[in-house]
Amino acid sequence: MSSVTEKFRKLGIDHAPGQEALQQKGSSVLIGEKLEGTPVDFSHGDVDAFEPLPGSLDSFVKGYKAGGRQAYTEYRGKEKIREDLAEKLSAFTGSQMNAKENIIITPGTQGALFLAMGSLIGSGDKVAIVEPDYFANRKLVEFFDGQLVPISMDYEGKNDRAGLDLEALEKAFADGVKLFLFSNPNNPTGVIYSEKEITKIADLAKKYGAALIVDELYSRQIFDHRNYTHLCAMAERPDNMVTIIGPSKTESLSGFRLGAAFGNKDIILRMEKLQAIVSLRAAGYSQAVLEQWFCEPEGFMDERILAHQKIRDDLIERLTKAQGVSARKTEGGSYLFVKLPPLTVEIGEFCKAVRELAGVTVTPGTEFGPQFTSHFRINFSQDAKAAGEAIDRLLLIMERYRSR
Amino acid sequence: MSSVTEKFRKLGIDHAPGQEALQQKGSSVLIGEKLEGTPVDFSHGDVDAFEPLPGSLDSFVKGYKAGGRQAYTEYRGKEKIREDLAEKLSAFTGSQMNAKENIIITPGTQGALFLAMGSLIGSGDKVAIVEPDYFANRKLVEFFDGQLVPISMDYEGKNDRAGLDLEALEKAFADGVKLFLFSNPNNPTGVIYSEKEITKIADLAKKYGAALIVDELYSRQIFDHRNYTHLCAMAERPDNMVTIIGPSKTESLSGFRLGAAFGNKDIILRMEKLQAIVSLRAAGYSQAVLEQWFCEPEGFMDERILAHQKIRDDLIERLTKAQGVSARKTEGGSYLFVKLPPLTVEIGEFCKAVRELAGVTVTPGTEFGPQFTSHFRINFSQDAKAAGEAIDRLLLIMERYRSR
Repeated sequence: MSSVTEKFRKLGIDHAPGQEALQQKGSSVLIGEKLEGTPVDFSHGDVDAFEPLPGSLDSFVKGYKAGGRQAYTEYRGKEKIREDLAEKLSAFTGSQMNAKENIIITPGTQGALFLAMGSLIGSGDKVAIVEPDYFANRKLVEFFDGQLVPISMDYEGKNDRAGLDLEALEKAFADGVKLFLFSNPNNPTGVIYSEKEITKIADLAKKYGAALIVDELYSRQIFDHRNYTHLCAMAERPDNMVTIIGPSKTESLSGFRLGAAFGNKDIILRMEKLQAIVSLRAAGYSQAVLEQWFCEPEGFMDERILAHQKIRDDLIERLTKAQGVSARKTEGGSYLFVKLPPLTVEIGEFCKAVRELAGVTVTPGTEFGPQFTSHFRINFSQDAKAAGEAIDRLLLIMERYRSR
Repeated sequence: MSSVTEKFRKLGIDHAPGQEALQQKGSSVLIGEKLEGTPVDFSHGDVDAFEPLPGSLDSFVKGYKAGGRQAYTEYRGKEKIREDLAEKLSAFTGSQMNAKENIIITPGTQGALFLAMGSLIGSGDKVAIVEPDYFANRKLVEFFDGQLVPISMDYEGKNDRAGLDLEALEKAFADGVKLFLFSNPNNPTGVIYSEKEITKIADLAKKYGAALIVDELYSRQIFDHRNYTHLCAMAERPDNMVTIIGPSKTESLSGFRLGAAFGNKDIILRMEKLQAIVSLRAAGYSQAVLEQWFCEPEGFMDERILAHQKIRDDLIERLTKAQGVSARKTEGGSYLFVKLPPLTVEIGEFCKAVRELAGVTVTPGTEFGPQFTSHFRINFSQDAKAAGEAIDRLLLIMERYRSR
């Protein structure tokens, strides 16, 4: 088999969030009748329930009307917008950056992740990722012919730290890992790394000369007034790192495809070189929408965060009433990673059955690490009432598949 | 040097169209005073001179207002839009396609090209490209660790064919080339492949089992009522091929970042898998704009094509008055590839000097093949008057650098 055939054989999307409509029907073992109710797609947030930032469409229209100078920006994004963004991201993270050298605007945070990984992974390079973590991380390492080194995160039952296995991380660095990538808050568990953990990660990366990609996509949505530590602001951070972030989640701007990466200028330059052959630039008119980001109306973000926190609490209450179901309480972001009791079918089959029988779409845990065979992930940025009812239906279906 | 460092060392963008603003000033040998006049950036079309398709902003706003179902489409693009597009592209090209399997919506035609190349090139695979052809082709082959096999196109002085070296192409296939990629109309020369050339390319690819990527980005802008042959509509075409196209050029929709690829379903599926980790999807709201494509008001495209044809004729007249300057008359698309007499500086230096002294940005020929050291490319989709004056200034500067 040629190298490219083998590569794409591994690169699956059937169970990826948002692709469920393409799955073939009738392949799963369906038990019982369908349950009526409003369909809920927990694979991603519902931008109808939490609408895009106010003013975002107006900014787009303004960008469109600005004409050619907005349509054709530098590959790394329009300079004026990078300047504005550099100021806002510096203030948010407490780190220093130069608009000319240290920042690139990307087509979504996914775009930032792809460019960063493509800029740092050479064929055969060892790359450490967390398990569980965002499902694309693993795929990207494989696509760029890197060698995957999973670091486990024992997140269950803790409240004061993520639970990353720091000894395993040090061993990985000592064994030649050149890049460590992690999301904070973690996707899919919603846990936040403690200041101690972040400090240790920064120290280790520096000690062993490894590069870091820190995915802070959900870092503006922190619950219960918890502390959040930006690795990029640590005094002892490694120089060879980038942070990625974007307005697709809490801010609901996913339909514009906007993201950003900031950090080491050599990495940013590589990312721009790659962007030039990948898709030239984030859509020019969309870039204009970034003026709304970090400039939300007074109280807007607080209100949005509180609304999500309430949905979280409601869903956890419903879920944990069921025997054998557990989930660590989300600390940041809109994900819940739910552990189920033993079932009579595999998790992928169960997710298909829930979709067909209850109109509820969830993502199998195995997308986040092969060992999560009893888990599913939901994005609870949804209409609160519909989400609660959907979880109740899911639990009714679960009882049909419970191992006795 | 690690494989990724080496890869990015080669992946340059300093001379790439649109990036000139990032070049350091003062490095070039400047002769004489600056010339006054409206600055013209010939590195890409001017969407202020030729505005986006009427209705495109309205379609975007409609897409935005449709909410979540438009923001989060399948990675290959929203099904309803693919259905509409499949019908329109079938009618335009005279080929058959199934909206479910044979088409993907991409972030620009650059996005389509990247995904197609990434889906077909394995490490070490031999890939044939044309010289001259679009500068990113070479970079993509190198990025995916392919082995570049250039096929020369002796385009000068012909009128009835592009001038591709078909014997060299057959030899390349016989020597194991697995993929052949070419643009038609050709970028940068604007020449069109004859029906004979297209038939032969199709036959050869089929005979040797090679894949084809046909870049038809400019195929809607054909001058002088010339014939244009879509390879995808040939009876004897190979099955293993995709055609790429998009509304960024003649239709001036570049600021929305939209493109499409259609063809073999296995290639399209791979492209979607890759899109899932590259940037998820073409911006959801932007996808809605595709309803305007191929649905232009009566006479709109004819008028736009004629306007470009007039600019072409004016610029060729100005250029060829100068001794030793030549260019084959553009047959399709908005590019002119201009050959200069011997100069006292290298072409890259000359282009920098023209930019600094005359406010005129052109792309050095060496971006399209290392042998084009006496050439530059312009995109003449510009304000007609400003373009004519800019070419006059460029020629005045050229005289300062002419070898005696």
